[in-house]
Amino acid sequence: MTSPEPLFLRACRRQPVERTPIWMMRQAGRYLPSYRAVRERHTFLEMCRTPELACEVTLQPIDQLGFDAAILFSDILITLPAMGLEVTFPEKGPKIEGPVRDHAAIKRLAVPDPTAELGYVLEAVRQIRGALAGRVPLIGFAGAPFTMMTYAVEGGGSKDYTHTKQLIFGDPEAAHDLLDRLARTCAGFLEAQVAAGAQAVQMFDSWAGILSPQDFREFALRWATRVIDLLRASPTWRDGGVPIIYFVNGCAPYLADYASSGADVLGVDYRVDIGAVRARVGDGVALQGNMDPGALFLPPEQIRARVADVLARAGRVGHVFNLGHGVMPQTDPAHVRAMVEAVKELSARPDAVAT
Amino acid sequence: MTSPEPLFLRACRRQPVERTPIWMMRQAGRYLPSYRAVRERHTFLEMCRTPELACEVTLQPIDQLGFDAAILFSDILITLPAMGLEVTFPEKGPKIEGPVRDHAAIKRLAVPDPTAELGYVLEAVRQIRGALAGRVPLIGFAGAPFTMMTYAVEGGGSKDYTHTKQLIFGDPEAAHDLLDRLARTCAGFLEAQVAAGAQAVQMFDSWAGILSPQDFREFALRWATRVIDLLRASPTWRDGGVPIIYFVNGCAPYLADYASSGADVLGVDYRVDIGAVRARVGDGVALQGNMDPGALFLPPEQIRARVADVLARAGRVGHVFNLGHGVMPQTDPAHVRAMVEAVKELSARPDAVAT
Repeated sequence: MTSPEPLFLRACRRQPVERTPIWMMRQAGRYLPSYRAVRERHTFLEMCRTPELACEVTLQPIDQLGFDAAILFSDILITLPAMGLEVTFPEKGPKIEGPVRDHAAIKRLAVPDPTAELGYVLEAVRQIRGALAGRVPLIGFAGAPFTMMTYAVEGGGSKDYTHTKQLIFGDPEAAHDLLDRLARTCAGFLEAQVAAGAQAVQMFDSWAGILSPQDFREFALRWATRVIDLLRASPTWRDGGVPIIYFVNGCAPYLADYASSGADVLGVDYRVDIGAVRARVGDGVALQGNMDPGALFLPPEQIRARVADVLARAGRVGHVFNLGHGVMPQTDPAHVRAMVEAVKELSARPDAVAT
Repeated sequence: MTSPEPLFLRACRRQPVERTPIWMMRQAGRYLPSYRAVRERHTFLEMCRTPELACEVTLQPIDQLGFDAAILFSDILITLPAMGLEVTFPEKGPKIEGPVRDHAAIKRLAVPDPTAELGYVLEAVRQIRGALAGRVPLIGFAGAPFTMMTYAVEGGGSKDYTHTKQLIFGDPEAAHDLLDRLARTCAGFLEAQVAAGAQAVQMFDSWAGILSPQDFREFALRWATRVIDLLRASPTWRDGGVPIIYFVNGCAPYLADYASSGADVLGVDYRVDIGAVRARVGDGVALQGNMDPGALFLPPEQIRARVADVLARAGRVGHVFNLGHGVMPQTDPAHVRAMVEAVKELSARPDAVAT
């Protein structure tokens, strides 16, 4: 008799579960004292580039708070240096040297071989899998092409994404060339993470929400779909492959198209009613989300009420509980624990599948 | 025989129009060389506080580009000093000294008398009305309570609005006290602008889009509605009053509630299909919007196609053409002209009302 697949993976595939699984974006992060202790001794980039450190902080929230999935400690911008763009992480947000704003600069960007250029990430994946020893699955991740384009073009975060808009509207051919390079980079990197042991992958489209619906289709969804197509066509996915999660921050305007990416799971940000999302995207995909990270500032009994509300709206089948955005550094870990416990208790099925 | 009301005001009231009117958020702004010429000689605050300068730049886009409404040159933060919070406008965005983060600090904030404290704005309104000489109507404006709260609490713009979330979730009583003070300030200021001659008013809820639907209702919509109720109950509105426009930046998640504010016109940001907004909010309100400001980087013939698309989605009745966010400083005024001309030509009704 084989043991059933882990809870999180079954929920991603809309299979029966005995309760709703939970993990949390940025769960390996600054709200945890044990994370800050590591961070005090190392820079952010050192932590990303040292597999032992990445492994250590990835496991902290699993050991301490009981999440149902681990997510690799890394950063979506980690691929940019391998493409030819230097990145630094000062306190006020990441900074990319020499942002690319014309076709000539875009043509100089490489599509990296992840084994050669990002081997430390793959080694971290291997070490984490070993350290987890099967307790919970490990999620790998990368930035979606459009979101990576905003960083490469703006040189960091932005208020109104002027340079990105100038590129996509002023030179769409160059924009699509950049998106193509970013899509191939993303697909190759995710495939390598799976080959190294990642049991699911999430593609973060953190800034796709700055587009009109028609531009979302043309510049964000089209290229996220390309990544997913490349993954599904790869030898790694030959026998079905691991679940693919596509997260669009600010997805509410795009619900008519959101389910067409080919992802197994759609990430839902906290601004929207996840029940309304389910009604619009249909039953072909799982949903992940979507409590406001800010709601973790509520007293624990009100956190419990918010959890109950999300669970009721999301429904029983094909739901992975998560925040609708990364947890904030000022969050009290005791409040996170209250959320985790509430999800586990309130979602327990009377008609539970035997484990 | 009396002449009909101006086109813009009729569209706000869903009355018959011979074509769709157009104005543009930040139309008196840095994309215009004539604005930059004034700005080179004066600080931003000097321009806000000197009626002659505010009047000069308010009229520039009317004279040069042919918009169907003028909007007062000012800033939503202009009320904060009158409440007791100092504001400066460095290049990288506004900064509020001593942001309020607890109830004690909130209780020290005044609800200003606009005539005594903001007389220079009211004088600008009077001068602009005189200078416009009836050519087009003048729109006054203020920041909506929730958006003003984010500035008062964060001390400026923010990436994740941590302090705002800590206040609304950690001390909702203090948050509502602050919102009440901001609502009374907003209503009093808008009423005074109308008394001075403003022919419509817009309330900007630029950051209401950082809330879940339930928190949008509780912390943003509830207090915007309060402002509108205060206005409608005021002597100034006794005989119907001027149209009230409520703009929520990022409105897509809130369409189920958006029409319930009591506003005559709902501002629609560029992320959402304005036709989908119409379908959800019904026919009781006018809509204003919603081309992506970034689309002004397109070649003029493609700008024309975007204009046609917005006009078709928005429909013929109760539509004021606008961008879905402020125009960007890097925009070519010739492209703005192409948009204005396209709106005027493409929306001209075969069954036009005689003017």
